[in-house]
Parts: sequence; structure tokens; C-alpha cells
Amino acid sequence: MSRFFSGKYARLTPYTPGEQPQDRQYIKLNTNESPFPPSPMAQRLARLEAGELQLYSDPACKKLVSAAAEAFGVRPDEIMFTNGSDDILNFAVMAFCDADHPAVFPDVTYGLYSVLCAVNGVPYEEIPLAEDFTLRVSDYCGVGKTVFLANPNAPTGIPLPRREIEKILSSNPDSVVVVDEAYVDFGGESCLGLIGTYKNLLVTRTFSKSRSLAGGRLGFGVGDRELIRDLNTLRYSTNPYNINRMTMMAGVGALADEKYFRACTEEIIRVRQETAAEMEKLGFEMTPSAANFLFVRHPKFGGAELYALLRDRGILVRHFETPRLKDYNRISVGSREDMRALLNALRELTGERA
Amino acid sequence: MSRFFSGKYARLTPYTPGEQPQDRQYIKLNTNESPFPPSPMAQRLARLEAGELQLYSDPACKKLVSAAAEAFGVRPDEIMFTNGSDDILNFAVMAFCDADHPAVFPDVTYGLYSVLCAVNGVPYEEIPLAEDFTLRVSDYCGVGKTVFLANPNAPTGIPLPRREIEKILSSNPDSVVVVDEAYVDFGGESCLGLIGTYKNLLVTRTFSKSRSLAGGRLGFGVGDRELIRDLNTLRYSTNPYNINRMTMMAGVGALADEKYFRACTEEIIRVRQETAAEMEKLGFEMTPSAANFLFVRHPKFGGAELYALLRDRGILVRHFETPRLKDYNRISVGSREDMRALLNALRELTGERA
Repeated sequence: MSRFFSGKYARLTPYTPGEQPQDRQYIKLNTNESPFPPSPMAQRLARLEAGELQLYSDPACKKLVSAAAEAFGVRPDEIMFTNGSDDILNFAVMAFCDADHPAVFPDVTYGLYSVLCAVNGVPYEEIPLAEDFTLRVSDYCGVGKTVFLANPNAPTGIPLPRREIEKILSSNPDSVVVVDEAYVDFGGESCLGLIGTYKNLLVTRTFSKSRSLAGGRLGFGVGDRELIRDLNTLRYSTNPYNINRMTMMAGVGALADEKYFRACTEEIIRVRQETAAEMEKLGFEMTPSAANFLFVRHPKFGGAELYALLRDRGILVRHFETPRLKDYNRISVGSREDMRALLNALRELTGERA
Repeated sequence: MSRFFSGKYARLTPYTPGEQPQDRQYIKLNTNESPFPPSPMAQRLARLEAGELQLYSDPACKKLVSAAAEAFGVRPDEIMFTNGSDDILNFAVMAFCDADHPAVFPDVTYGLYSVLCAVNGVPYEEIPLAEDFTLRVSDYCGVGKTVFLANPNAPTGIPLPRREIEKILSSNPDSVVVVDEAYVDFGGESCLGLIGTYKNLLVTRTFSKSRSLAGGRLGFGVGDRELIRDLNTLRYSTNPYNINRMTMMAGVGALADEKYFRACTEEIIRVRQETAAEMEKLGFEMTPSAANFLFVRHPKFGGAELYALLRDRGILVRHFETPRLKDYNRISVGSREDMRALLNALRELTGERA
């Protein structure tokens, strides 16, 4: 760091994104991308904007906000869009956490939460998940801190029923509970229906996974309009024109094409189940995933070892070198063809040739 | 604000973007947009990405960084891209300002600087410009604070010669000097050539104005690689995938089409000069602008009055209701046709019919 860098970041370790290697073509199962391109309608609307980029985008995102309000059954003033969902999570940490309002989240969850706390100077507590990576809801009831829960959780894919989250919401009336639903469309139970009932609920969502717009960068938050007003105050105080015109209209197109969305998510769920069944036959153990990835280990291989063996075979998965995760790998659910290649490689490695 | 909003924002007033009215079609001369669409090459490359949006963008922005490094004659590790230049300015405030390193900038300048300081809890000092809106360089020499200078300045368009900025750089070796060159391509003298000489220099730039990509959201910072490393630490700690694929490639295309860039900027400079000459004939007074806007007043009209009269005639300009600016309006340089309509309206209003 330079001698000009503010001392408050002296111990900051940034987030490490999944690798994007350039040395060869890989079957990329390491960043939970969709195997399907965006809806043709999303593509078409995005392309139409390319000739109009000399004009600023609408800072209020009116068209997109109203399309989303209708799609998700909430009011326009209960939604705010951001440059990917990392951005809404950052705003949530800024808005609802400080020295007097620490954050709390599981020890095993999306790695960005702790980084966002660190960069914003917010104290945080990590509560260990149970041995089987399930969350004890009682750990969060009446905790009196700003709660961050990924549902389904990452990288385990384990979902929490909505009624369990309600216990956390109702027992923490003076703290915001952020429910990060990045993966909810693959089998989780959404808390969007609780907006209006709990003033302390903020649901965050992304278009990256189930809407095939990871490279478009589009996320949003849904919550009581007072929470959304706070978050908008921060957005207008840092980067008012935060969504570009092309992405804004890609979002409108993705929401309009509900049929495509359903077809893609249903296919990913099917492929996940089939892949899981095949991997179990090969001796893999895994958490019960309701997301677009599997979190797996094999008694014969270390996690880093399996990662490296697959990488040698042109298949990229995500390995985390932390004590509780090091035996595992997170494998995104790709296309049927990708999964066939994965299973073939795993059959070879485990000596269980088909 | 909600009762959950962190108390540190109790007195935060967000930035107010230029209005984007939906009630009728206006000749929009209020947000300094380019009258020209993006380069055909930028459009084409952006459109190509629309079908690949299921894949994340490259967090390192390699292609764009290397194109920009070549175009601007610096090294790749001396550049960082952001979601518009507001984003790099926010990172600069976060990185290089804190309670011990207050910010300093003119009382009349880009309105976001003070908002960014407020949202980040950074104390700041505003130094009054001279009566004619020129900056006294001596006010900033040895000031020992993090300096923010828009060059040319906004909303006056007045440029500072590079040798004057060097005095500020060399007399503040322990503070970062941020030179915001959003408008430099319209006649200012860039400080990019000083990268490598001054470790405390950060130049910020945008593709919004001279590259016709306001709606694409693309900005960047250029500075010593240690400064860029600090800024990247913050980027990777808040929003690692901050640039979407379409915008990234629009940027590559815009940089490749140097001929189009020159043609557009030269035309805007010509139209600015012609419009200024015509407006002076109508009795307007103005600052000597080296940007893509004119900052004007007329002895017969209050600033708000002229703004409203033009709005009634379907022409939108930017009015600021602050004491030093209230007699003025900032008028973007649009197309020849836009300027003809503007001049006709002004001739009518001033009673100086052609």
C-alpha cells in the first residue's frame, strides 16, 4: 500500500473472485454462471441501447423498477437496483451497520460479507454453522445485530425455510435482517412475500444466476420503503447513475421473458439432481443443495487435490482453502454436456469407469 | 430516514443529478452529454457481448486496461476502471482522505466532491474562487490536504495550465492531488504526462463526454501504481466485478476509433466557439470555457428566470440555485441544430431577432 492510503485500511484483505484463467479453454464450473445465454428479449433490448449511449441512463431506473415491482408483487418504492448484488450488499453494510450495530453471519457463507464489514470499519461476528453446515436458527434469534443470511447459503446450497427466517425477523425488531437470495430461484423459499410485514427485512437479489446476466451486472434490494429510501440516499451520494442503459434494458427484457426464465431454472434444477445422483454413485458426499451448484467431497481425495486433478483435465471448479471448507469443492451446475464431461473425469479419477 | 439508518448519515444530503423529465421531448442541454452517438466500433463491440452476458466480466478488465494503457501512454498497472468516474472519485475519497487527511477543493466545482466527503465522513474545506471564478493556485500550494481539482473546472469550464497544477503537486508531496479531467478533451491541458514524475498525482477521466458513453458508465483513474493498487484494494473489497461486459468492450471500441473521437471533439469545440460568439452578440457574459458547455448569464435575466423561459420553449439547461451561481446557467454544447434552436430562442427572449 502507498504511504497515502488511509490507515483505516491497514489490515484490509480484499475479496478474491473466482479465477478467470486465460491459459486454455476450460469447462468453467467455478463461478456459478448460467450455462444458458440471456433471454433473447434481454439481448435484443440491450443491443438497442448501444446506439444511445451518449445519453445518461435514468438514475431513478424507472422502467426497470416498475417492471420488477410488477414481477415481484411489491411497490416501486420498495425496490432499488444496483451494479450487481455485491453493490446492494455494500450499501446495506454502510446503511445499517456501524460500531454500535455490528453485523453477524455464519462462519461459512458468502465471503464478501466479512470483506464489506472490514472495508466499512464495521465489527462483525461469525457464528459457526453446525457440523453438517446447517444453521441453528436460535443462534440468530434476539441477537440484536444486523443479520446477513444467504438463503440458500453459499457455498453449501443449504436452504432455510421461510418460517425459520420469520423467527429471526420477529425476534430482532430493532435490527435489519438481510436475506441474500442470489440462489433462491433454484429451489429456495423466498422472503419477498414478507415485505410489508417486517419493517426490518431487506431481501437482496441478483440477475447474475437465474437470469443469465452475470456479465451485465444487475442486482437489487427489496424492503420497506424507508429502508429503500436510506439505501437510495447512499446511492445518490456515491454513484447516482449506477446502472448503464444496456443493462437496465437487459433487465427489463429478462423480466418480461418469464417462460425462458422458468425453462432455464427448471433445467438447471433437473441437471443438478441428476448430477448429484451420479456423483453419489461415485462415492461423493454432498450437502443438500437448493442452488445452482453442488458442494462435494470425496473420501479418497483432498479438496485441493481434486480441484487440481480436474483443472488438469480442463475442468475448473471452486476450491476454498479455509479449515472447514478445504476438503470440499463447489461445482457449478453447467450444461448437460459440461456435466457429462465432469462425470467422465470423475469416473476416471475414482476408478469407477462407466 | 428509517430508524435503522446509521446515525453517521444523519446530516447527509445526496447529490441531485440533472433532471430527466418525462413530460415532453426536450432539447437536452443540461447534463453535458455528447450530441454524437458512440463510435460505430464501440457500438458493435458492445452489441457482440449481449449474447455472452451469462458469463462474468473480467474483474481485472485486462483488455480495456491494456487498450487504455497504450492509448494514454502509461503502464497497465497505472490504470483502474470504474462504473463511471463518480465511482473512481468515491474510491479516491475513501482511499486518500480521512479525519487526519481532510479534502480541499474550490467552493465552485463539481458538486459531488462535497457529497462524497460527507458520505465517507471526511472533513473538507472549500476555498472560494476569485470573483471571476478563476482559481488562485497559491491557495493550494503547501495546503497539506488531499486536493480535488476539476480541470477544466465545472460548471465554469475554466482550465488551469499544467504548469500551475505542477506547483500544487510539488508543494504537497505528502498529499494526493486528484485532477478530474472529465472535460479535458475539449481544450484543457492534461496532466497524464506527469504520471511517473509525481507519486501523489491521480488523474480521473470519463468516457461519458468526449467518448459519447455517458449511458455506458465508464470512468478510470491513472496514477502511480501504488495509488492504483490502493484503489484496486477498495474496488476488490466492495464490488470486484464493477464493469459489465458490454461497457468494457464499448470502451475498447471507443479507444480504437481515434479518428471518430477527434472528429467529434473538434466539432464540439467549433460549435462551442460559434455559439459563444453568437451569444455574446445577444449580450450574454460567460466564463472562458474549455469544456463542452458554456456558463452564461445575461444582465436582463435572472438565472432561474432564463432557465424557466428556455424550459417553456422545450430547451433544458442546468441551473444551480447556490448564491454564487444563481445568476448563471450551464448550457451543454449540443449539435449544430440544437444550438440553432437555442440561439433562436435566445434571440426571441432578448428581443434581438436575427
